Amino acid sequence: MAIIRAEIGKRDQETKNAIIAELTDVLVKYGSPRENTHVLLYEVSYDNWAKGGLTYNERKKQAQESS
Amino acid sequence: MAIIRAEIGKRDQETKNAIIAELTDVLVKYGSPRENTHVLLYEVSYDNWAKGGLTYNERKKQAQESS
Amino acid sequence: MAIIRAEIGKRDQETKNAIIAELTDVLVKYGSPRENTHVLLYEVSYDNWAKGGLTYNERKKQAQESS
Amino acid sequence: MAIIRAEIGKRDQETKNAIIAELTDVLVKYGSPRENTHVLLYEVSYDNWAKGGLTYNERKKQAQESS
Amino acid sequence: MAIIRAEIGKRDQETKNAIIAELTDVLVKYGSPRENTHVLLYEVSYDNWAKGGLTYNERKKQAQESS
Amino acid sequence: MAIIRAEIGKRDQETKNAIIAELTDVLVKYGSPRENTHVLLYEVSYDNWAKGGLTYNERKKQAQESS
Repeated sequence: MAIIRAEIGKRDQETKNAIIAELTDVLVKYGSPRENTHVLLYEVSYDNWAKGGLTYNERKKQAQESS
Repeated sequence: MAIIRAEIGKRDQETKNAIIAELTDVLVKYGSPRENTHVLLYEVSYDNWAKGGLTYNERKKQAQESS
Repeated sequence: MAIIRAEIGKRDQETKNAIIAELTDVLVKYGSPRENTHVLLYEVSYDNWAKGGLTYNERKKQAQESS
Repeated sequence: MAIIRAEIGKRDQETKNAIIAELTDVLVKYGSPRENTHVLLYEVSYDNWAKGGLTYNERKKQAQESS
Repeated sequence: MAIIRAEIGKRDQETKNAIIAELTDVLVKYGSPRENTHVLLYEVSYDNWAKGGLTYNERKKQAQESS
Repeated sequence: MAIIRAEIGKRDQETKNAIIAELTDVLVKYGSPRENTHVLLYEVSYDNWAKGGLTYNERKKQAQESS
């Protein structure tokens, strides 16, 4: 059994379905029964997600200003 | 003390209040001080929540098509 | 369907089994299919869990010293 | 390296940026490399967040009624 | 960017390394920069992980007794 | 109110106490009542925590071999 939570940026439904299917396949390959393998996607806004103390939206803005 | 996080499907407020009250009662019964018992509900879309590699929305659709 | 995560202090197995069973019953009562209801307990050390800026172990120590 | 998740009430973007920057500074001060320090904010509705078995919205309402 | 958390049963290090590498490949395939793709494995005891109100250890014991 | 979860490497208790106190101060500064501000530290093994598809232990080993 396995529960996978993935925090990602926004994706369309087709891409989310593909991510879910392939993440599941990885865990099944390593022993988790398919029907006991769960995936939950959290699409996190880049206004709420930061690296190095700056949100990804802020990082993008600064990269554009300095280019 | 206890912190409970429950990932559930969408519910109306009255149902959420009942779930919160009763989850709290369980933890209090087993020793957690009431005012140190916290509950957070995450209502997860069935487009983002999967079992066996298929979202619950997709599973429902397939079940209807095959019936 | 529901996934419940509860962060609690250390408990013996009998108590954990009871907590799990009763948390599950709450979600089933409000519509989650029993076999799609999952519970995970995280027993968190009071050295790593804080309220008001002090770990629960530290709070206990200070309470004893001031009494 | 560090990953910080903070569940908070709703905040404006300026405040979120400040919270992110200062949480990051704390971890960097204690040894986490800045560019390996991540923060994610989850703004949780007070309809879904409870203490003592009552949502914060419900607690507020009861406090107002009793005053 | 992506952060994946997988709750799994106990695995040896070689298997964990393979799971991590392949989960990462899935996210990279769908647009997450490799060096911004993080995986954390939580190996949860089957005494603390339940489905249908019974821990996986308890379910296994009951399955053996009834066979 | 705020709940902070920080995934970090192993730290001694004194450092953990300092991290907890200072993370709490940040949230209190931006409006969270002190006694409703919670911190939980998860010390994650570098065998279970990966970036770019390799655990931090594996990355360290490879960095040493190539130097």
